[in-house]
Amino acid sequence: MPPILITMNSEVTGAATVGDATAASIFVTVLTRGPIPRTEIAARLGVSAATVSKAVRPLLAAGYLTESGGESEAATRPGRPVVPLRVVAEREYVIGVKLAADHLSGVVVDLLANVRAARDVALTDHSVAGVINAIGALVDDLRAAAAVQGGQVTRLGVGLGGHVDARAGVVRYAPFLADAAGDEWREVPLRELLGTRCGLPVVIENDVNSLTVAEQWFGAGVDVPSFAVVTIGAGIGCGLVVGGALVHGAVGLAGELGHVPITADGPECPRCGKAGCVESIAAEGAILHRVRAATGRPDLDITAAAVLAREGDRGAAAAFATAGDALGRALAIVANLLNPHRIVLSGEGLAASDLFESAARASFARHAFGQAADCDLVTRPLPDAIWARGAAAVAIAQLFRGPSTGIPMR
Amino acid sequence: MPPILITMNSEVTGAATVGDATAASIFVTVLTRGPIPRTEIAARLGVSAATVSKAVRPLLAAGYLTESGGESEAATRPGRPVVPLRVVAEREYVIGVKLAADHLSGVVVDLLANVRAARDVALTDHSVAGVINAIGALVDDLRAAAAVQGGQVTRLGVGLGGHVDARAGVVRYAPFLADAAGDEWREVPLRELLGTRCGLPVVIENDVNSLTVAEQWFGAGVDVPSFAVVTIGAGIGCGLVVGGALVHGAVGLAGELGHVPITADGPECPRCGKAGCVESIAAEGAILHRVRAATGRPDLDITAAAVLAREGDRGAAAAFATAGDALGRALAIVANLLNPHRIVLSGEGLAASDLFESAARASFARHAFGQAADCDLVTRPLPDAIWARGAAAVAIAQLFRGPSTGIPMR
Repeated sequence: MPPILITMNSEVTGAATVGDATAASIFVTVLTRGPIPRTEIAARLGVSAATVSKAVRPLLAAGYLTESGGESEAATRPGRPVVPLRVVAEREYVIGVKLAADHLSGVVVDLLANVRAARDVALTDHSVAGVINAIGALVDDLRAAAAVQGGQVTRLGVGLGGHVDARAGVVRYAPFLADAAGDEWREVPLRELLGTRCGLPVVIENDVNSLTVAEQWFGAGVDVPSFAVVTIGAGIGCGLVVGGALVHGAVGLAGELGHVPITADGPECPRCGKAGCVESIAAEGAILHRVRAATGRPDLDITAAAVLAREGDRGAAAAFATAGDALGRALAIVANLLNPHRIVLSGEGLAASDLFESAARASFARHAFGQAADCDLVTRPLPDAIWARGAAAVAIAQLFRGPSTGIPMR
Repeated sequence: MPPILITMNSEVTGAATVGDATAASIFVTVLTRGPIPRTEIAARLGVSAATVSKAVRPLLAAGYLTESGGESEAATRPGRPVVPLRVVAEREYVIGVKLAADHLSGVVVDLLANVRAARDVALTDHSVAGVINAIGALVDDLRAAAAVQGGQVTRLGVGLGGHVDARAGVVRYAPFLADAAGDEWREVPLRELLGTRCGLPVVIENDVNSLTVAEQWFGAGVDVPSFAVVTIGAGIGCGLVVGGALVHGAVGLAGELGHVPITADGPECPRCGKAGCVESIAAEGAILHRVRAATGRPDLDITAAAVLAREGDRGAAAAFATAGDALGRALAIVANLLNPHRIVLSGEGLAASDLFESAARASFARHAFGQAADCDLVTRPLPDAIWARGAAAVAIAQLFRGPSTGIPMR
């Protein structure tokens, strides 16, 4: 089993810290697999027991790890006692927020990402100031909830759709956010603005990437070094973990599966303006467009369209199946290009999975290459609170960011 | 500038060695950027000078690094003298072989991958025994050439097309190799067979991956943490470096760009049997098929087809342009999904780049998403000897493989 590497951080910061890397790998191993004895950590990471002990000492001293409690089965064996390590969950609390078009979903979690409190608030003002205020109020509220439990909030992670440059802390482009004049968000220094408002170290990340980190640490990605999360709905998103690390790409645009071309002469995508991308065929809007055209009923929404398809309307059913076919090709592209161990399919679009999943699987099987077709394809409904928890997980990962980030090392 | 991570090794072996990782990162830094002072290594890798000094000591003692010779400019500055480190190129010689359908291309290189001798021999017997014998004879020849120069060969790297499981050392499938009965290579334990024949530690790797490592260390990939190499010709290959590490995927199939679907209803691919993959439109055979159909001349080969297109035959020119259009979409898929810093286009198909490159660039621009379109797109002719050098580079990387590989650590 390959270790969980911490290149996620180094890729974000642009400067790996090899010394920290050992400590961080050990911490993440205890976080995701603890309680766990030192010997098992050493075996997993391929390092010596002495290296583990040396790296663990400051983590114990700082109260992030403990040897007490949670005895493992190994401890009951005869001979030298085995004292497993575990993370002190209450050492820090972290807030995660998912910023959606019409609401904010927020959680405060402990270091094991256990949700201690959750809030959901409507979002109406999409201007930069309006969003900062709304997140600020939500953070205040969650901090108060944490304080009641005796927890101190030390970090904030925020996930949102669009082009998020996590390294720079800047929202390059978020078309779902716009001020009253209709100007879409571009080049918004969200990390800095929220840091000032909340007085906390902040990390911002693309929302699907956040979800992917949550899956990597606590979900369907725990046991594999490479996997993809593909979310379907109004848009098609994708988070990639390769070699144990989240892939950001040169400017934070990795994972734009929704906008890879899958046909030479497809319809124009209302989001990217290109012809024949995955979203132009498989996104909710594209499905709805086809259902309306086939039924002559422009009044339908996606829920009504799905009902119609389930009731046997062939045009409506074909519209969903066409989306499934396109989605299957998109998944085959991921499989053939990256050969991941697993692809996790999620997103609100799963509500209609009965209408497209078989078409998607058939299309995937038709286009996946050789043994890449053996890729584990799972569907997982992941509610909004999981997305917020993902943003918190990204913030927890910041514990081991190097000095180049401007966030002091702890 | 992010460091060159050595997860390439850990991904192959399945067990990272964090302790070794530091030494390996330092060695690779000196290899690719030396002569280089310790302070600059420390800055680049984000580690302390003490960590560098500690890791460097055994490398100096074992004769892999030296402080003598190759004084850097920094050494002439006033104050405490700066002694740069450099790799002792002659410490070990390594053989790299590219195994192609009709010939073997072999080089013996020093640790800096300087080519000390090169050989090219015809390959006629495609049976497993025939190929082992041919590579064995070539290795004997190159060892003798190295001995004349006083060099001792310590490793062998072999690159070949097809599905190569580098971790297991097994050729899962290589359709271009087959015995007299016409049985294609499947599940051939090439690493073990060559190790027995040659008495050397052996690494096998997909040939495009080998080329990608050569580019990562010594070519167009030196200054970027993520890039792709796309090779065109009889097939379309792709090597991926993400976060400084070569991507292998779950079973070594990553990079099958040639077989990602790019159209819903394309022709059937003679290699993968799927419809509408990149190769079914952009590979040499597909181009030739279209030129022959357009001109009614089944006698044409690809060179004659290119001449015809250059002479103004519209059907022939369109056949190449169609390939360029498909290739551009394939490159856009790589750019949108992985957002690499650079894509390097190479392979024997570049000989006709005047006939397809503008179509490819136009198509790429049409389908690349947002800032992912800023990806640096370069064409580089890389002759066979470079591919062989890549196989040698992969073998050099084995210097720091951990004990789990079965190859003793040096």
